[in-house]
Amino acid sequence: MIYFDDIPIGAFSDLGRYTFTEENIIAFAKLWDPQPFHIDPDAAKDSMFGGLVASGWHVTCAWMKLMVAEREKAAKERGAVYAGGVSPGFLDLKWRAPVRPGDTLHYTSITVEKLDLQSRPTFGILRSENIGTNQDGVKVFSFIGQAFMPRRPEGTEAS
Amino acid sequence: MIYFDDIPIGAFSDLGRYTFTEENIIAFAKLWDPQPFHIDPDAAKDSMFGGLVASGWHVTCAWMKLMVAEREKAAKERGAVYAGGVSPGFLDLKWRAPVRPGDTLHYTSITVEKLDLQSRPTFGILRSENIGTNQDGVKVFSFIGQAFMPRRPEGTEAS
Repeated sequence: MIYFDDIPIGAFSDLGRYTFTEENIIAFAKLWDPQPFHIDPDAAKDSMFGGLVASGWHVTCAWMKLMVAEREKAAKERGAVYAGGVSPGFLDLKWRAPVRPGDTLHYTSITVEKLDLQSRPTFGILRSENIGTNQDGVKVFSFIGQAFMPRRPEGTEAS
Repeated sequence: MIYFDDIPIGAFSDLGRYTFTEENIIAFAKLWDPQPFHIDPDAAKDSMFGGLVASGWHVTCAWMKLMVAEREKAAKERGAVYAGGVSPGFLDLKWRAPVRPGDTLHYTSITVEKLDLQSRPTFGILRSENIGTNQDGVKVFSFIGQAFMPRRPEGTEAS
């Protein structure tokens, strides 16, 4: 089991890639963000984007999907099971450039801060910088994620 | 057309309500956040939540859906068409308490800051505090949203 104490600042995770298509952009946006430039390729041409773009929340949810898959893979392949990981929220989410049909984002995560919780001494908060970079090397998405993580119980050792 | 100049600090929008059900919680999470406490009622009983809870991204996407619906309603019923509204990102999103099947969140939005952009003098950034409150009056969700808004062109007047 991996605890708060076991993760150093600088720990890096490659979360893999997600490809946005006209079909999945429109399907997501019809459910959650039905603005013309997300659901209607013709109307999108006349928008400030000049064409269809993915909802920022689609870009964000793709990160979550890949993060969960990476954690499952780490558990199965390396026995690396994370204790906890529930999030109190995130900081400073930036949609830096449009994501268009055919774009593939590469998502990464790096631990950038560890916070001690005086109110809950058996837990800490991990902060990670999460980045999505497109196939042209442009950083189009970033945010600071946060996760509650229990501390390693006394008398146990990291595996 | 409603421009940056036309929206005062303190402007309030009631975005309406969204009810979370076991069915929609699981459907969302299977696609985007398939952790056991979001997709499996039995496994969720053994989690730190003690039962099924909605993905925080589901809580967030429900806000977006209601915000788009409110803007469409304002345009249709009151001719209040917002110029722009594309977002550069968000600040300080907090998931303060679990959202469970049967919970209905009431979402509201209030303009809390207006920023001048020296780099783009024809635009400003509106900041809004967005809140989701459950049926027991508990504030379970909040974040500071941001939207680019064009300034009113010279020689025009607010309608």
